[in-house]
Amino acid sequence: MPAFNPLVETLTAPPIPHVQSWARAYSGACGPLIDLSQAVPGYAPHHDLLAALGQCASDPRLAGYGAIEGEPELRTAYAKHVAGLYGTSVHMGSVQITAGCNQAFTAALMAVASAGDAVLLTNPCYFNHETTLTMLGISANTVACKPELGFVPGAADIDTAITPKTKAVVLVSPNNPTGAVYPAELLCEIFDLCKRRGIWLILDETYRDFMDPLDLASGPMGREDWRENLIQLYSFSKSFCIPGHRLGAVTAGEAVIRQMAKVMDNLQICAPRAVQHAVAPLIPVLENWREQNRQEINRRASAMQSSIALVPGWKLNSIGAYFAFVRHPYPGRTSADVAQQLAKQLGLITLPGSYFGEELDDFLRLAFANVEVSPIQEACARLKSLT
Amino acid sequence: MPAFNPLVETLTAPPIPHVQSWARAYSGACGPLIDLSQAVPGYAPHHDLLAALGQCASDPRLAGYGAIEGEPELRTAYAKHVAGLYGTSVHMGSVQITAGCNQAFTAALMAVASAGDAVLLTNPCYFNHETTLTMLGISANTVACKPELGFVPGAADIDTAITPKTKAVVLVSPNNPTGAVYPAELLCEIFDLCKRRGIWLILDETYRDFMDPLDLASGPMGREDWRENLIQLYSFSKSFCIPGHRLGAVTAGEAVIRQMAKVMDNLQICAPRAVQHAVAPLIPVLENWREQNRQEINRRASAMQSSIALVPGWKLNSIGAYFAFVRHPYPGRTSADVAQQLAKQLGLITLPGSYFGEELDDFLRLAFANVEVSPIQEACARLKSLT
Repeated sequence: MPAFNPLVETLTAPPIPHVQSWARAYSGACGPLIDLSQAVPGYAPHHDLLAALGQCASDPRLAGYGAIEGEPELRTAYAKHVAGLYGTSVHMGSVQITAGCNQAFTAALMAVASAGDAVLLTNPCYFNHETTLTMLGISANTVACKPELGFVPGAADIDTAITPKTKAVVLVSPNNPTGAVYPAELLCEIFDLCKRRGIWLILDETYRDFMDPLDLASGPMGREDWRENLIQLYSFSKSFCIPGHRLGAVTAGEAVIRQMAKVMDNLQICAPRAVQHAVAPLIPVLENWREQNRQEINRRASAMQSSIALVPGWKLNSIGAYFAFVRHPYPGRTSADVAQQLAKQLGLITLPGSYFGEELDDFLRLAFANVEVSPIQEACARLKSLT
Repeated sequence: MPAFNPLVETLTAPPIPHVQSWARAYSGACGPLIDLSQAVPGYAPHHDLLAALGQCASDPRLAGYGAIEGEPELRTAYAKHVAGLYGTSVHMGSVQITAGCNQAFTAALMAVASAGDAVLLTNPCYFNHETTLTMLGISANTVACKPELGFVPGAADIDTAITPKTKAVVLVSPNNPTGAVYPAELLCEIFDLCKRRGIWLILDETYRDFMDPLDLASGPMGREDWRENLIQLYSFSKSFCIPGHRLGAVTAGEAVIRQMAKVMDNLQICAPRAVQHAVAPLIPVLENWREQNRQEINRRASAMQSSIALVPGWKLNSIGAYFAFVRHPYPGRTSADVAQQLAKQLGLITLPGSYFGEELDDFLRLAFANVEVSPIQEACARLKSLT
């Protein structure tokens, strides 16, 4: 057999299916499986959205190819939504629709960097950001986000970590995996330093709609010059509960969108069309429903905080949006070893901290938003049974 | 503004929207616009498929994330279909579902090559294959397919064009843009030489279901050792008339699928799910419908052949599946210039030969399968009016 691309061959297998496979050995002794691994909305999409999805998917007019940048209806509706959220002016020319936020990241990345370049991530980071860089031969440098500082990076550390090869800084806020919310002033400071250093700020705000309302208008997107070097990413998967339909969006200057359209054309011509038409008119309509979900996730976060506090030795280091990043009480053991035990023995699927970067073996990521208050309490009770 | 990736910035804008924009200047004087540019099925999806798409898209159970490699239902159904078509043994472990065939190509390519490597294409080739290579920093070498040989490449020429940097040979049969069908024995010969040279054969058979039934079982996939170095690509877009839903598939050895799954996870986690469940049970059910479409496209091909023969100076050089590759009677002019005139003056959208490679300015690609017999005759009548 001929050789594979070594950049791909040396990547580890996708982590989520791997972790979920551990639970196959679970006997059921502690009750039903509780899956806190992948960030998946723990409730169904709104019935109006399901009806619209059905209607659009069966519409023969939407069976043909669509525009590479996305359907004008969704680009317009989403631009209006973003303009309202961030208190800025955005038009459809600044929006590229993608098949989910991983594709938004990949296409944005390819528009600004190629093999031999470097991109600055945080440590911890979302693992698919790192593997995407690696797969493309782009060096992933990192800036440390320290537990004692709430996993928020320092602007000066970022400035120091930028080299002549660095093409972009990638930030995720609210963060995956830590849940940390980066203050608007910090984001502006990093935006300014990126501008000064002549590089892009790729800001993934997939989780902006959850837990606590963010002061988005005070962030970089609220700045008059945001188009200069900001590339903002979003996913409809979480807020609209439709990850299986694959829908994401990039907001950036029109010059960026022109480059991204070339990448998108090569990657897959256009994002799936039916879901774009289903979502477009419902963005304003489902605002109250999203607000109710936000409040529900806030209740789940409170349940997570109060329940984990009752488990001896476990410590909640940070929490936000979908995720809690917790310190386990087994300092001598790897996080993969601990997560594996929790899956097999307690029927509790979590992600090892080490999957998100260096020196994170003391941590686990719990995607608490996946499940209701009661299983969150039950999960913590199971952790307690182990101590 | 910071710099873009020069590999992307120097790519030309996506060709299809560019060509379609020429027709905006058309006055309507010759009658309705006839679009022979993008390969788009000129009839609607089957109503059973539209109903299934509607049902699956509104199913909340399919709103969550799916398996990276694809839904087991579709992988199994497609594997069975392929096994029947090619007279070989294929199981779901040899199938990766993608969001269309462009993504199938990109993911397959990334699994076997990276920046600095080379891949061998034909000249002419499908332009997105070339731009995808360029965007990834992979050199696109080409082997000439000569008009006088029906645009079929020679195995010896391929053997000669392979260098130590070549990781794969990419073939499209039936071909885009020429429609040429490569004989099964030639494909086997190229498969063998790729095997001998230790490289992959990426064989895109997106158009296999049209015009004349192919002897697929005599090709490489019918060989016992096909898993050794064959990566076969397919699109559901044309055969099932659903390009807007984005669905493609790769058939390859399980070792290849394992590498591709890592790439797919980074590119977009998984292909959209609803369409996978809609298509899976209908693959065998819609066999007669596909056969009727094949016969209809055969009628369109005959209409193309007989109508273009009546236009002085125009010559049909090759035809197959969706495409006719024709020589225009204006040898001093570029193909882009001619195509632009046809769009603006005659309301006839075609693709310039030069978009597909070197020394092809004498040709245009006509995607005749897009429209019915009568507009094909009308298109040729308009060409005649110009001579």
